[in-house]
Amino acid sequence: MKNYADRLLSAIEKKGSPCIVGLDPRLDLMPDFIRTNVQGRPLAEAVRCAIASFNQAVIEAVNEVVPAVKLQIAFYEQYGLPGLHAFEDTIRLARDFGLIVIVDAKRNDISSTAQAYANAFLGRTNIFGHLEAIFDVDCITVSPFLGRDSLIPFINACADYGKGIFVLVKTSNPGSVDLQDQELAAGGEPLYKGLAKMVDVCGRKVVGESGYSSIGAVVGATFPEEARELRRLMPQAIILVPGYGAQGGTAEGAAACFNNDRRGAVVNASRSIIYSHDRQDVSRDEFKRTVRTSAEEMTKEIVGELPLAKAATQ
Amino acid sequence: MKNYADRLLSAIEKKGSPCIVGLDPRLDLMPDFIRTNVQGRPLAEAVRCAIASFNQAVIEAVNEVVPAVKLQIAFYEQYGLPGLHAFEDTIRLARDFGLIVIVDAKRNDISSTAQAYANAFLGRTNIFGHLEAIFDVDCITVSPFLGRDSLIPFINACADYGKGIFVLVKTSNPGSVDLQDQELAAGGEPLYKGLAKMVDVCGRKVVGESGYSSIGAVVGATFPEEARELRRLMPQAIILVPGYGAQGGTAEGAAACFNNDRRGAVVNASRSIIYSHDRQDVSRDEFKRTVRTSAEEMTKEIVGELPLAKAATQ
Repeated sequence: MKNYADRLLSAIEKKGSPCIVGLDPRLDLMPDFIRTNVQGRPLAEAVRCAIASFNQAVIEAVNEVVPAVKLQIAFYEQYGLPGLHAFEDTIRLARDFGLIVIVDAKRNDISSTAQAYANAFLGRTNIFGHLEAIFDVDCITVSPFLGRDSLIPFINACADYGKGIFVLVKTSNPGSVDLQDQELAAGGEPLYKGLAKMVDVCGRKVVGESGYSSIGAVVGATFPEEARELRRLMPQAIILVPGYGAQGGTAEGAAACFNNDRRGAVVNASRSIIYSHDRQDVSRDEFKRTVRTSAEEMTKEIVGELPLAKAATQ
Repeated sequence: MKNYADRLLSAIEKKGSPCIVGLDPRLDLMPDFIRTNVQGRPLAEAVRCAIASFNQAVIEAVNEVVPAVKLQIAFYEQYGLPGLHAFEDTIRLARDFGLIVIVDAKRNDISSTAQAYANAFLGRTNIFGHLEAIFDVDCITVSPFLGRDSLIPFINACADYGKGIFVLVKTSNPGSVDLQDQELAAGGEPLYKGLAKMVDVCGRKVVGESGYSSIGAVVGATFPEEARELRRLMPQAIILVPGYGAQGGTAEGAAACFNNDRRGAVVNASRSIIYSHDRQDVSRDEFKRTVRTSAEEMTKEIVGELPLAKAATQ
């Protein structure tokens, strides 16, 4: 089983892009052709097909341009079972297109329950005596709120099945300061630094040939200064950078999450790519061209800000 | 729309029990009759039916004894779509039996995504221009890791739809000390106390006629001393107490989460109730009797430890 960090880094190199596209379905933002195609069908089927066919158009548009897609599972759960069927359809399709599949789920719980989540997304579940793969994606995001013991089932699944996790360290939203920035009495450092050190230590168990670990971290593009500190504290972690584009994160902020080898981070954009069409009555082909162009432009912006590229032009 | 806290407290009074039963399906622990009933069916259907019919037996056994059931969604997700169909089947059945339905999901994310989770479980989702209820349960557990802004969509849904949330404050696992017990430089108090104060403030918006708020907190039965402190810091919050039974929490630890009015907490047990049968070849009726007896005994133990009951005997 090939190490997840190695697989992700080799896909980034092959595509020439550290950018990933967020597949966050919102029926109200999709172009008209999606709705037209499902008109007259029973509601549950219409919802599932609309989401799956929207994602298919996006995947067709970006699969040559980016190494991975990120599915924010909340946007599927909000459509209930039809949404979750479309979630499964999309995972299968993305995999068929050779894309790495990351699920943004921010899951976690106490040990036996954390094990159930690890089984669901990364490992295997015992079903009537047989170990079965369930959603079987490459990587999920995990919350550290319940402490180190809650991360262990996920880390074990990463080691056993060639999978990865991104642990939340510093999220992109304004409220991330409420807990994550709290200065601790011991050491006088903010909580997020302690989390980064925990990720660094936990990650040493699953380091690939690339020198990077399958245990990564989420650090928002909206806090460049913090990102530079965190980059230094977790040299082997791949950082998932959300918040680029619609949430106000800049290419410079995202670039702060990379190492000097121009590796070690993936930058996600969702809304600014998949809803970049400027008219609701766009055709399917026009929609795909717009989405592909948006993904290509994002890659140019990010790659243009990477550490060595900057050093070379100075 | 009746306030959630009021509905929960009135159900507790009616049943004479602050105990709730966790419906955490594990096919490998279910009695033989569950498996026998689904033999020969296609795998997905067998899994869905096994889980749903197991839960039905438990619900039939306990619906006269407890006010609510708690579904740990991880144990459904680990069985994929069939598990999630059974999740939906179980919600419907529990509601038909007049039970309050709590989903232990520990969900949260940044604002727009938190909104999607709030829509999924408590509120409504815009589907092709119509606002539709999705899982439509009474209450879910929510993680505070992303800060106060991430709680707002859930709190609004509680106000708008008569629903509730339990915010994680101090979880029952050993690793809860890693983050939740960190002493903060400002004030020198552990993080969990700051969270309790946040829950108290946020909850004031959704207080019912009972004087209790629909914004509650999760505090593990495994830490009685912390529980007494937290009880004082959040006088209006209903506390969900996990960790009783299989996780080592005692009735005394659970009792620390109640107010002197003998109200203000619900105590959950899962494994020690639903897997309390001592033989795999138990009949359906025997299984139901055992489960009901376990739930009744738990009620006796908890009620026997409640503050005023103790005071009266002193």
